[in-house]
Amino acid sequence: PGRARRLLLSQLFQPLALPVGGQAGSEGRPGEPTCRSQRLMLQGGLIHPTSPGCYCYLPPTVRAMEKLIKVMDEEMQAVGGQKLNLPSLCSAELWRASGRWNQMGPELFRLVDRHNHGYCLGPTHEEVVTELVASQSGLSYKQLPLRLYQVTRKFRDEPKPRFGLLRSREFYMKDMYTFDASEEAARHTYEQVCDAYCSFFTRLGLPFVKVQAATGSIGGTTSHEFQLPADIGEDRLVLCPQGHFAANVETLNGEQTSCPTCGEKLTETKGIEVGHTFYLGTKYSSVANAVFSSAENKPQLAEMGCYGLGVTRILAASIEVLSTEDSIRWPSLIAPYQLCFIPPKRGSKEEEEGAALLERVYDDLAEALPHLAGDSVLDDRTQLTIGKRLKDANRLGYPYVVVAGKRVCEDPPVFEVWNQNTGEVLYLTKEGVIELLSKVQVP
Amino acid sequence: PGRARRLLLSQLFQPLALPVGGQAGSEGRPGEPTCRSQRLMLQGGLIHPTSPGCYCYLPPTVRAMEKLIKVMDEEMQAVGGQKLNLPSLCSAELWRASGRWNQMGPELFRLVDRHNHGYCLGPTHEEVVTELVASQSGLSYKQLPLRLYQVTRKFRDEPKPRFGLLRSREFYMKDMYTFDASEEAARHTYEQVCDAYCSFFTRLGLPFVKVQAATGSIGGTTSHEFQLPADIGEDRLVLCPQGHFAANVETLNGEQTSCPTCGEKLTETKGIEVGHTFYLGTKYSSVANAVFSSAENKPQLAEMGCYGLGVTRILAASIEVLSTEDSIRWPSLIAPYQLCFIPPKRGSKEEEEGAALLERVYDDLAEALPHLAGDSVLDDRTQLTIGKRLKDANRLGYPYVVVAGKRVCEDPPVFEVWNQNTGEVLYLTKEGVIELLSKVQVP
Repeated sequence: PGRARRLLLSQLFQPLALPVGGQAGSEGRPGEPTCRSQRLMLQGGLIHPTSPGCYCYLPPTVRAMEKLIKVMDEEMQAVGGQKLNLPSLCSAELWRASGRWNQMGPELFRLVDRHNHGYCLGPTHEEVVTELVASQSGLSYKQLPLRLYQVTRKFRDEPKPRFGLLRSREFYMKDMYTFDASEEAARHTYEQVCDAYCSFFTRLGLPFVKVQAATGSIGGTTSHEFQLPADIGEDRLVLCPQGHFAANVETLNGEQTSCPTCGEKLTETKGIEVGHTFYLGTKYSSVANAVFSSAENKPQLAEMGCYGLGVTRILAASIEVLSTEDSIRWPSLIAPYQLCFIPPKRGSKEEEEGAALLERVYDDLAEALPHLAGDSVLDDRTQLTIGKRLKDANRLGYPYVVVAGKRVCEDPPVFEVWNQNTGEVLYLTKEGVIELLSKVQVP
Repeated sequence: PGRARRLLLSQLFQPLALPVGGQAGSEGRPGEPTCRSQRLMLQGGLIHPTSPGCYCYLPPTVRAMEKLIKVMDEEMQAVGGQKLNLPSLCSAELWRASGRWNQMGPELFRLVDRHNHGYCLGPTHEEVVTELVASQSGLSYKQLPLRLYQVTRKFRDEPKPRFGLLRSREFYMKDMYTFDASEEAARHTYEQVCDAYCSFFTRLGLPFVKVQAATGSIGGTTSHEFQLPADIGEDRLVLCPQGHFAANVETLNGEQTSCPTCGEKLTETKGIEVGHTFYLGTKYSSVANAVFSSAENKPQLAEMGCYGLGVTRILAASIEVLSTEDSIRWPSLIAPYQLCFIPPKRGSKEEEEGAALLERVYDDLAEALPHLAGDSVLDDRTQLTIGKRLKDANRLGYPYVVVAGKRVCEDPPVFEVWNQNTGEVLYLTKEGVIELLSKVQVP
């Protein structure tokens, strides 16, 4: 087994159109980005539009998404989540039975098969999963709670797809559905899953707020949204500065200006919804007759909850809230690539020695820290100056950049290491670089 | 951080209906399995039907699928594959331009959005990926070959969905698309990807044959199928016993009974198609004008290939060809769970001491071999005899079963370890169990 293949930037399929355009307008003429994250993702070779609200996710985005899903899997499995996978084609009958076939209106993508049977493309899966649980004839209270989740593509015929992956027509969602033996148990499940969501956003280092929310077409009696405050956000939120109260304004009756608990003046902000939780009760279980046998051996309806995290939306929303006007910043944990290596310019006096020394760092690092091997990119565009490539690296937001600069010919050789999230630059020997990067986490 | 949570069989969402039904017929009355793998997957709680040709994948299937995709990722990335993700909603115009909108007929699921624009649900993505590459205006010959792949859900309105995941309407596929600078380079790519496919099936331990095949609606001039010989297979194959020649009979002009190379009598078999490779030439690149600039700085059409592996079909096909009439056998590498632990029966004289000793093995193993922690199931249905649970474990096809039997009260305690793929049973101490299982691979 030879050395791991080096990832050369020139060979990566990440079509860069880095020159920065104007400010993005929120209405958007056709083909024009409508917000910062969309513009940065288009320029950085992260997404490519195919039709309104539909995007190709390019390789760096798939890497970030797979990392994000790993973190979600950890958090969901820590609260007993079991991962399954439900079909996109959902039968019209099932949706008619729940009443949502009509209720959802034109947002639902509908089609018929060759036998003229009707289907929708699932925007969410309450009906299907409840039917699945209802089909388990022998379900006992001893097997509850059941916490089932999936990560799949969802479809919604948005009237106005815009903001790139923030409001698209095809997107990925993590959706969990829970089944409990009593309302009390279901409320406990609700708290546990909300706590898992908090832990998830905290691990990503994203500034989030949890607010009371309306239940909309999903239904149920209790609901919360997880929101990232941002001007581009489509939701209006009010927050108590002491943290006693937080709500989406759509849940309030008229203007509310002071906290119901402490009386302090509420602050207002806009937010991007990245997660949504619902306590459903028996809305769906009563339609599908999803029952379990109780301790008294009687059939009893399961108490349900459902819980969504927007996978592709979180990617875009992270970029939206963490980036500057012209530089992408990712939550470090899920950056597509953790490291960029910049060798000397072609024709410079450090060229030969510096390139060899840097490649040595690259290879030794891949050997010493194998979990970072696929996360290291070598910017081999040596026709460009170090400065130009460093600027590109800054725009693309690698958490760390290792440069073979002027001091690479010292004895021992010294490398520049940029920590892009803190703005710090360190001058380190090869051993120092490996020591520093040994702290970098990937999921 | 406490001990890893133990996976209790009674808590897993794997609805078992283990009593074995009759032989599966290939026509199938509604709701009746049409082949062995479908019957075993239904009985074993691996799949659940929602509508014709659409299935819920239950948690053990998702585990197997994720393992399978990891192995595919390794093989595809070893030949320079870069993973992206293309939309399911594909615009009608794009498919009209390639001629396939009409050619595919009723197999294509079609729908319109709220603005009455037409779409199909992608059964494959030649058009979309070629358009994507064509949109890269600055593509240089130095960036070729490009080898792009994805693992996504595909849709095909089968006239006769049957055989469970072998012929379904919604399924997962790994599809790779390659772009080269010359026919020679593209032929080299074709060989490399075919070799990666051989390596993939060899690692899984699946008996496969590579046969020349027809190109069908995809097009191109050269094509091979990877087939698993099986009576249930829908393809007829002829093979030279010396390995000089192998073909799908649909490629032959009339009956061919002897090898064109060595003259030996060809044998006939049926096969399940699990992979398909196509050399496409410029069929799609010429429609989308997917060009690169050559060394002479002239625009030149890319030479293409495309390559598919049926992800969910491989799961079912593996079970079809490896299993017995009533026991599932997985390729060990991708079995949903590697290990099943069976404690003594409730009320037996070994109950208390045996259960504690077995749980100790379970926990120590999870600590010593952390990569197996999520792969170990504890069959806590202790109201059942060991024999009954051992039979269930055999039917579900865990590669290894560890039993706290009669000899668990010896000093030192001795456990029975069943290797279900070889039929071997060993009597080992705890250290022996851990030593043996340290050789078990998971992707």
